[in-house]
Amino acid sequence: MDRDRARALLDAVAAGEVPSADALDALAVAPYQDLADTLVDTHRALRTGDPEVVYGAGKTTEQVLAAVGGLQSERAVLVTRAAPEAVAALREQYAEVVVEGGTVAVGPLPEPRGCVAVLAAGTSDGAVAAEAALTARAFGAGVERVDDVGVAGLHRLIAARPALDRADCLVVVAGMEGALPSVVGGLVGTPMVAVPTSVGYGASFGGLAALLAMLNACAPGITVVNIDNGFGAGVFAARVARRR
Amino acid sequence: MDRDRARALLDAVAAGEVPSADALDALAVAPYQDLADTLVDTHRALRTGDPEVVYGAGKTTEQVLAAVGGLQSERAVLVTRAAPEAVAALREQYAEVVVEGGTVAVGPLPEPRGCVAVLAAGTSDGAVAAEAALTARAFGAGVERVDDVGVAGLHRLIAARPALDRADCLVVVAGMEGALPSVVGGLVGTPMVAVPTSVGYGASFGGLAALLAMLNACAPGITVVNIDNGFGAGVFAARVARRR
Amino acid sequence: MDRDRARALLDAVAAGEVPSADALDALAVAPYQDLADTLVDTHRALRTGDPEVVYGAGKTTEQVLAAVGGLQSERAVLVTRAAPEAVAALREQYAEVVVEGGTVAVGPLPEPRGCVAVLAAGTSDGAVAAEAALTARAFGAGVERVDDVGVAGLHRLIAARPALDRADCLVVVAGMEGALPSVVGGLVGTPMVAVPTSVGYGASFGGLAALLAMLNACAPGITVVNIDNGFGAGVFAARVARRR
Amino acid sequence: MDRDRARALLDAVAAGEVPSADALDALAVAPYQDLADTLVDTHRALRTGDPEVVYGAGKTTEQVLAAVGGLQSERAVLVTRAAPEAVAALREQYAEVVVEGGTVAVGPLPEPRGCVAVLAAGTSDGAVAAEAALTARAFGAGVERVDDVGVAGLHRLIAARPALDRADCLVVVAGMEGALPSVVGGLVGTPMVAVPTSVGYGASFGGLAALLAMLNACAPGITVVNIDNGFGAGVFAARVARRR
Amino acid sequence: MDRDRARALLDAVAAGEVPSADALDALAVAPYQDLADTLVDTHRALRTGDPEVVYGAGKTTEQVLAAVGGLQSERAVLVTRAAPEAVAALREQYAEVVVEGGTVAVGPLPEPRGCVAVLAAGTSDGAVAAEAALTARAFGAGVERVDDVGVAGLHRLIAARPALDRADCLVVVAGMEGALPSVVGGLVGTPMVAVPTSVGYGASFGGLAALLAMLNACAPGITVVNIDNGFGAGVFAARVARRR
Amino acid sequence: MDRDRARALLDAVAAGEVPSADALDALAVAPYQDLADTLVDTHRALRTGDPEVVYGAGKTTEQVLAAVGGLQSERAVLVTRAAPEAVAALREQYAEVVVEGGTVAVGPLPEPRGCVAVLAAGTSDGAVAAEAALTARAFGAGVERVDDVGVAGLHRLIAARPALDRADCLVVVAGMEGALPSVVGGLVGTPMVAVPTSVGYGASFGGLAALLAMLNACAPGITVVNIDNGFGAGVFAARVARRR
Amino acid sequence: MDRDRARALLDAVAAGEVPSADALDALAVAPYQDLADTLVDTHRALRTGDPEVVYGAGKTTEQVLAAVGGLQSERAVLVTRAAPEAVAALREQYAEVVVEGGTVAVGPLPEPRGCVAVLAAGTSDGAVAAEAALTARAFGAGVERVDDVGVAGLHRLIAARPALDRADCLVVVAGMEGALPSVVGGLVGTPMVAVPTSVGYGASFGGLAALLAMLNACAPGITVVNIDNGFGAGVFAARVARRR
Amino acid sequence: MDRDRARALLDAVAAGEVPSADALDALAVAPYQDLADTLVDTHRALRTGDPEVVYGAGKTTEQVLAAVGGLQSERAVLVTRAAPEAVAALREQYAEVVVEGGTVAVGPLPEPRGCVAVLAAGTSDGAVAAEAALTARAFGAGVERVDDVGVAGLHRLIAARPALDRADCLVVVAGMEGALPSVVGGLVGTPMVAVPTSVGYGASFGGLAALLAMLNACAPGITVVNIDNGFGAGVFAARVARRR
Repeated sequence: MDRDRARALLDAVAAGEVPSADALDALAVAPYQDLADTLVDTHRALRTGDPEVVYGAGKTTEQVLAAVGGLQSERAVLVTRAAPEAVAALREQYAEVVVEGGTVAVGPLPEPRGCVAVLAAGTSDGAVAAEAALTARAFGAGVERVDDVGVAGLHRLIAARPALDRADCLVVVAGMEGALPSVVGGLVGTPMVAVPTSVGYGASFGGLAALLAMLNACAPGITVVNIDNGFGAGVFAARVARRR
Repeated sequence: MDRDRARALLDAVAAGEVPSADALDALAVAPYQDLADTLVDTHRALRTGDPEVVYGAGKTTEQVLAAVGGLQSERAVLVTRAAPEAVAALREQYAEVVVEGGTVAVGPLPEPRGCVAVLAAGTSDGAVAAEAALTARAFGAGVERVDDVGVAGLHRLIAARPALDRADCLVVVAGMEGALPSVVGGLVGTPMVAVPTSVGYGASFGGLAALLAMLNACAPGITVVNIDNGFGAGVFAARVARRR
Repeated sequence: MDRDRARALLDAVAAGEVPSADALDALAVAPYQDLADTLVDTHRALRTGDPEVVYGAGKTTEQVLAAVGGLQSERAVLVTRAAPEAVAALREQYAEVVVEGGTVAVGPLPEPRGCVAVLAAGTSDGAVAAEAALTARAFGAGVERVDDVGVAGLHRLIAARPALDRADCLVVVAGMEGALPSVVGGLVGTPMVAVPTSVGYGASFGGLAALLAMLNACAPGITVVNIDNGFGAGVFAARVARRR
Repeated sequence: MDRDRARALLDAVAAGEVPSADALDALAVAPYQDLADTLVDTHRALRTGDPEVVYGAGKTTEQVLAAVGGLQSERAVLVTRAAPEAVAALREQYAEVVVEGGTVAVGPLPEPRGCVAVLAAGTSDGAVAAEAALTARAFGAGVERVDDVGVAGLHRLIAARPALDRADCLVVVAGMEGALPSVVGGLVGTPMVAVPTSVGYGASFGGLAALLAMLNACAPGITVVNIDNGFGAGVFAARVARRR
Repeated sequence: MDRDRARALLDAVAAGEVPSADALDALAVAPYQDLADTLVDTHRALRTGDPEVVYGAGKTTEQVLAAVGGLQSERAVLVTRAAPEAVAALREQYAEVVVEGGTVAVGPLPEPRGCVAVLAAGTSDGAVAAEAALTARAFGAGVERVDDVGVAGLHRLIAARPALDRADCLVVVAGMEGALPSVVGGLVGTPMVAVPTSVGYGASFGGLAALLAMLNACAPGITVVNIDNGFGAGVFAARVARRR
Repeated sequence: MDRDRARALLDAVAAGEVPSADALDALAVAPYQDLADTLVDTHRALRTGDPEVVYGAGKTTEQVLAAVGGLQSERAVLVTRAAPEAVAALREQYAEVVVEGGTVAVGPLPEPRGCVAVLAAGTSDGAVAAEAALTARAFGAGVERVDDVGVAGLHRLIAARPALDRADCLVVVAGMEGALPSVVGGLVGTPMVAVPTSVGYGASFGGLAALLAMLNACAPGITVVNIDNGFGAGVFAARVARRR
Repeated sequence: MDRDRARALLDAVAAGEVPSADALDALAVAPYQDLADTLVDTHRALRTGDPEVVYGAGKTTEQVLAAVGGLQSERAVLVTRAAPEAVAALREQYAEVVVEGGTVAVGPLPEPRGCVAVLAAGTSDGAVAAEAALTARAFGAGVERVDDVGVAGLHRLIAARPALDRADCLVVVAGMEGALPSVVGGLVGTPMVAVPTSVGYGASFGGLAALLAMLNACAPGITVVNIDNGFGAGVFAARVARRR
Repeated sequence: MDRDRARALLDAVAAGEVPSADALDALAVAPYQDLADTLVDTHRALRTGDPEVVYGAGKTTEQVLAAVGGLQSERAVLVTRAAPEAVAALREQYAEVVVEGGTVAVGPLPEPRGCVAVLAAGTSDGAVAAEAALTARAFGAGVERVDDVGVAGLHRLIAARPALDRADCLVVVAGMEGALPSVVGGLVGTPMVAVPTSVGYGASFGGLAALLAMLNACAPGITVVNIDNGFGAGVFAARVARRR
């Protein structure tokens, strides 16, 4: 029951066209509806800065195309974890497409607000970093990438210092021992999201070693997302950065 | 905004005492309030069969007494995991008290509907079984207990067959290897809640062995609660039994 | 040794046709036999409400057809986790077939008693929810499904409130963080079985995260089954619901 | 080697007072020193918004007092996980003291910039929430607390909606099944840090259940810190909020 | 219903004193009773070689004394995991007492049949080895102990070779890396029970490391019991040894 | 240096043909050699009852044939975990072949001594049970199999009672919740080896649930081998049984 | 800014060609550059004994060839975990190639300094041992291999005693129960690196059992690397051995 | 049977005083004895560089004093994990005592050969670092300590560079996320032993996080010991360093 329908009802009551008892019955069922509406509106409201997202894993190319096609949006739709065939099909069908590995933005990207720096410890961490970076970009932030800055080669990390200083939020991606966030956290006080990856073998247990390391980071102010969850880190970082 | 206030408002609109625009404003803020009320009512509604509960763990005797005293109820209030001192204080202060280990019902127990049978595999599982039994009773079910029916002594279990047949819901409590639910599940088709206990040592890992065993029970139709969670099992079983 | 054979033996003793010593020997071997019979009878008895079940996983189409064909039943036989080929073969061979994903009911479904509501948090949880729903139906309960009611979109859940209120038992299916049962458990006091699914990645550890969350649900009266065990939840829920 | 000393050296070279070879030797050892200086400066720089912190766990009252006394600061020093005796001693010795459980701020708190909302699911989560809240305050943010908003009582959560909308960053604290962040994440798009607590028993495994649930939250944009790490969450949230 | 009562009943039928219908009714209820009797008899039968056992852990001295006093046995009663006070009380009250740490045999030990050799890797494993040894002795086997034969000192192990050759069954007790069973298993083909102990720290995880090592022993024919379960190993070994 | 060579050397010394100094040198190098010989002899000695074994997993058919062909034995060679092609090739090449799944005995089986009973809980546990059974047979014991005696159908187990009573050692194979050993252990006092299998899904964690359950069995005298390790259980059981 | 450029600058200052203010500006930006250079130099310096390494896992043959071709080195380049095709391509393209399984050294191996002995417990551990051995060789040490010296056949191990005595560092490779390092550690006092392998099944949990065993080895002075990490062990052992 | 006794025996044979058959019998029992002797000698031999060690944990002061007193050594005896009372008693009784926390060296320390550098990440890691340092010293190496060089403060680590360059072997001690070894491993090529500590809380799981991180370190040539095992690291490092 929206405002207009409620007003009409009340006017009808005032005009004596509808008895107040009937109006009461009509309003009695409203709360449930209102509740749902409220929450939906809320939902929509919160999305003002967020694009529509299609999770591509496990979807056929046809399903991905249908999902993207079904979204009428003035801004880029984000597709994550798309198979190569789906990526190719999106490239073919749409004019304005940005691709980073299996992450695809279809449509015009929003004006960037603030800056997210995405650091990756090793080349194998690149796919997760790319997912984080394009996600942050599609969610409205500017993005800068710094690759291959593992802790066993500190000079590359220290050379990247200016980029760290420019950022409003850092996304730090690392597998194996997951030490990079601790080191970066000792250099800057910028909000940082650490992303453990499943890169490694043996006692890395699919990324568990990196995850635990990041949760125990001695530098304060580091938060962590799920293993390989570049998407979640990108969403979070964009929300922080675009507040600037 | 409850029904009476809404009716009065509508009558005032119909009588021309309140402009419909003002009424609209009054109703516009209602949804939030309604939502909270709805949920609270819901909550209250669902409690028609459930008593008030005070979780005694970590509370001082004074806190337990205050919590019980603060609840004005016509039916028994349930106190779980109370320390011996708190139990003694409740016994002293209240006339109508039922005690099973650290579980206490203060006040008149409701008329029992349906029947819950609580089985315990070993004597060490008794405290958890007692919590389940008195909880089920306070939540409105009749309760029958069958103790010391471990799988290594099947004859005691088979002798308890009639009690199993009488029950509307079974609560089966076992530590160590947690095998009792599987065996009972092969004998009867009654809904059964399995409760793993932390009884054991070494590779029982604080009840993990029993928990995993129960989750993997080969007999169908067995559900499981947290380790040592007699309370949760009792609540569930009472809700099933009292539907009869 | 059934009742008729025992009566005949006793009559023969009474008639002096069989010496009591011989009768004693005949009865002496009976207990073992009786024991087995008792247990078998018991078993059969408990199945009055339960259909025959064929577990399809790892079986060839021929094996599934043979297993179903070997069961002479007046009511629907349930086949779970059947491969697509086996499903197709069953459809072709039998006239009265109900299919939900890999779950198949072959033959006339029983008159529904009571109502089970099956909720699924996400679309990926659909297969497990379908297994639970058709299982509950084949085990004699009426079933209502509510899909896609994840906790991150509360309005859909609250809109489903009437269905929750109608049910005698809830089956709540969720992967990832497994939070849905906690939220639903705060809304209604209906007996609830929570089913964790293996939907997720990284630190979901194949459904372990959802399983642990459900075991630790703060709302009382929630029980849990094994990861992806829609069948077990359906059996349990039907047994509860059809008691109404 | 700072700028002034380098300038003097170069002037001496230009004046012929120092041979260029000697100057070269002096500069040759500089990089190491520079590196250390650079990093120290960096470090100091990043601390402009952060107070000094004394980790109280495992320290005697004397050690805590000595540590606090040794820090000459114009703004509040933060003490975390202090024992009750240490808290009492700090209260006695200093005039301007704010205490939240075992967390203490000694000295004038900074002007608040931005707003952090700290939500706690249950009363047992209060100590961790208090640590997060006072930490965020001492790190320069304004703080608002919302207690006892567990997922099994949604109405309290929804009533707290305005506070959620006001915040620049949320800290959501929950033990047991750790479901609260998922639900809140469906309501608002504010950056959120989830803090699992060790509240629970049995299969909560010391907070592991809540930790895994939060890492697998289906709502995007949620990040997680270590179990019971209210301090880390507070630091992070303040850094986000005070950027406004 | 035992043989004598059944015979009397049949004689009465043959004599026409009891109608066969009444006899049938009497026999109809027999199977349940028979089942219980059968299992009890069975149980008793299997105990011909096994003593009564009182599990002392968690029992007060009074409870232990009462439990032992309540068992009227011509052979030694075994008490395991008794507290020092209980041990002292047993020593005082009974004349014929054998004590090994917290394991006590009260009464005359049986004639030894066969030989169990109990090996312990380190001195810290001694308590578990003692429990195994006295248990095996009380369960009817002869016992020989070989202490301090860790794998890092092979010469002591090889010097013990004759004892290994004499044994009918070996019990091999080890904590830390649990390597001793593998080494012994390469020397002899005697049936061997390996007992992991909780001796160790850090990544021993309470005996898990030793347990896993023993389960993965490359020498064939090694079986394993629970961590610190000297009692179970002693029971098993005695049953094997006394078959000689 | 074997006994004959040593005697010849000593005779030569006695005859004055070899100076005692030279003899000393010859003997001085002996210990190392002796040690190796001793251990080898030992090894060989212990194998008097044990056949040669070829572990087929990961071997090509050619490698399996070569391994079997290279062993010159008067008694059956055992091949475990052979691929179907290797089994077929062995059948073709050798006249006297016994096959149980992937386990093959090539050559004349020894005279059986004693009796091993191999019980399997479910049909899916059959492959592991077969490996245990043929292994025990090839290692010199008689073997009796009892299949499909899961704890959810006790009557089948109790009907198998006579087989249990006949056995010198039991091998009890079960997956899922692994409860069968506990139940059997309550019926008989025969030495028992429990074999957990990887049959199950979800929270069975590849057999971990069954393994833990068996290690925690409440019936005393049960020992356990690695998950799916039918071979190890068969070796152990044969060594016990053939001692009769 | 290297030494030569700095000297030229200072000379220019001394000659009055460059004002000291300009020189200061030039030097002011140097520290960052210097820092990077320092670290790079350091890096290069430490590599005087270490070859270039190409990690072959997940790389195509073309990528491996390109990576090797891009390294201009006077000494052997090491390629690890190369696929068979890549190995074949390297063999074809280069004249001086040493291959051990998937590990390849391309180019002239350095003069060996010191001696590393690589022991492997079983034939299945051979691949990891080969990786360790060729790595140690390429990193500058001499290498001796001792295969198939499992703890269940001590005589082979003791026969290898001389090789152990010759070594400057041991690499001990074992899967399953991982007991070999403990036994070897009791024989010699040489520095030892233990390498757990993923050889095993069931409760080996992908090498976890061996890893834990080695970490808990009772013989002092044993260190451990990641599961299957022959490369890391080889690097470490070479660095120890070549110090002789 | 040592060389002299063997020579006498052979002389007696040569002299005809002992028949060669009797000599053969005497020699026949020798190998066992020889084996033990060989291994003991071996053992003794390897200890030339290693001191006697008394493990103090769980020992009373009297036991520690007795153990130390029973060792007649010309060089320092090492006592680890001694309680404060035992440390005080040792200080009182002996003149030449070096104490580092609970680690004590009693008697003259050996001439240092080579250099071990012990780094600790945080002050809480100091006790483990001290154990490693004094152990390495007592085992014959020179030792240099570098404290408080956590990865979140790189400048302190880089300032310690010269100490790293001087060392023959590094011991790097860290708890929480255990990142320090990775960073140090990128700076120098010295053999390094990483020691995880149990410092941390929550998801550090008693040092598991640090242990896993170190096993997965991306810098090659790092080996790891058990959690808190400073002793093992010290033994290993001394054995490496004193080879110089």
